[in-house]
Amino acid sequence: MKESVKIYNNERIDQLYSQDIKIIQSPDVFSFSLDAVLLADFANLKISSKIKIMDLCAGNGAVGLFASQKTKGQIFQIELQERLADMGQRSIQLNGLQNQVHMVNLDLANTFNKFEKDSFDYVLCNPPYFKDQTTSKKNPNPYLAIARHEIKTSLDQVLEVASGLLKMNGKLYLVHRPERFSEILSVMTRYRLAPKKVRLVYPRKNGEANMVLIEAIKDGRAGGMRFVEPLYTYEGKEYSTEVKGLLYGGEKA
Amino acid sequence: MKESVKIYNNERIDQLYSQDIKIIQSPDVFSFSLDAVLLADFANLKISSKIKIMDLCAGNGAVGLFASQKTKGQIFQIELQERLADMGQRSIQLNGLQNQVHMVNLDLANTFNKFEKDSFDYVLCNPPYFKDQTTSKKNPNPYLAIARHEIKTSLDQVLEVASGLLKMNGKLYLVHRPERFSEILSVMTRYRLAPKKVRLVYPRKNGEANMVLIEAIKDGRAGGMRFVEPLYTYEGKEYSTEVKGLLYGGEKA
Repeated sequence: MKESVKIYNNERIDQLYSQDIKIIQSPDVFSFSLDAVLLADFANLKISSKIKIMDLCAGNGAVGLFASQKTKGQIFQIELQERLADMGQRSIQLNGLQNQVHMVNLDLANTFNKFEKDSFDYVLCNPPYFKDQTTSKKNPNPYLAIARHEIKTSLDQVLEVASGLLKMNGKLYLVHRPERFSEILSVMTRYRLAPKKVRLVYPRKNGEANMVLIEAIKDGRAGGMRFVEPLYTYEGKEYSTEVKGLLYGGEKA
Repeated sequence: MKESVKIYNNERIDQLYSQDIKIIQSPDVFSFSLDAVLLADFANLKISSKIKIMDLCAGNGAVGLFASQKTKGQIFQIELQERLADMGQRSIQLNGLQNQVHMVNLDLANTFNKFEKDSFDYVLCNPPYFKDQTTSKKNPNPYLAIARHEIKTSLDQVLEVASGLLKMNGKLYLVHRPERFSEILSVMTRYRLAPKKVRLVYPRKNGEANMVLIEAIKDGRAGGMRFVEPLYTYEGKEYSTEVKGLLYGGEKA
């Protein structure tokens, strides 16, 4: 049941025109980006209502909300920041998805106080991309700094928790930055996650990739990595046909 | 000085029309493939005559011969199979490159009996791609089987030798198969090689990559991997503009 929900100052309701999902956003706190859209698109989820999906580092819940349109499975979301988890909770109500999507305001460190190990079929994660180095420039806004930098969590913790949550042969879908690809593979291996499918995202032809989508299988056999067709974000100054399809609907490229 | 050289039965002389290099080939023994052309193109070599370049697993010497057109540096080639090393030696003479390119018929295991450690600026390598598994189908022709399968060497040995040959901050250029990418990164790390630049090769749009080109720096800082623009081999049924440029000359894409 869709409920009327409170919208605070500086919040707005955004919608992907390709999906009937409304998302509460705030430039002061958190807005989802193309990364979330691409991650939800990349995830190959079973439709069955019996599957369980975790959206880690959920932010305002965009990834899980988009994913809800691809499956009847139960979707759980963990977000550390109370303000963001509250936005996500209100978006769930706004879309009447209370029976399918469940936001939990929780520190990743306490994941297994609340969730059982080896109990999820899928984990989706759009984590903070940047290391928390004293030299790195961070957003002075603490909400955005925590979402972008590894201040409160780390790649190591994210992958350890993801692996812990997954059943054997469960799948992790991760979006991250290509410059950390080597480290990601090495940490995945440490946590029994076998990277299997990779999609690189390039802003344009003749440029370098700025995003990488990775599918990994828990306890999967090592080797056999596949690089599927690259995704280009732009064609000239416009979004590419594929990205337009994801944002505004219509035919995929 | 170009010399007249013996050409045996079942050998022929091939030429890349983009380069003034003739290469002795034999379908019975070894013919270079697009992989060698792409590897030589990917390598970013200094022009200086002072640099030293090693072409490991050199086969009939195609990679080093192509690379000779990009630099005045000294190029050494190691090939295990006497028959192939002899073809390579004759191609060097055929092109009058005896003062620049030097083929050595040697087992990788004995590399450091002949070459000094930490003495090369660049290593290029187009190694056997496939594991030597009892279940794997191998070419009944032993020349081709040894060139394609890790019968006489292994990824581990190739990367150990490459790293041993390189000076600090020297660069390795490797062509390999994407399905072994994860293993390649992990073995590189073991041998102090930091993968820095990656170019994926896709047969066509909407397909999976079937080749990967990797630049790694010895004792380079970990992290900072860049995926440069993908290369497409075909456009429709023809070679792509970029590949045509490499094979037949003319404008690059």
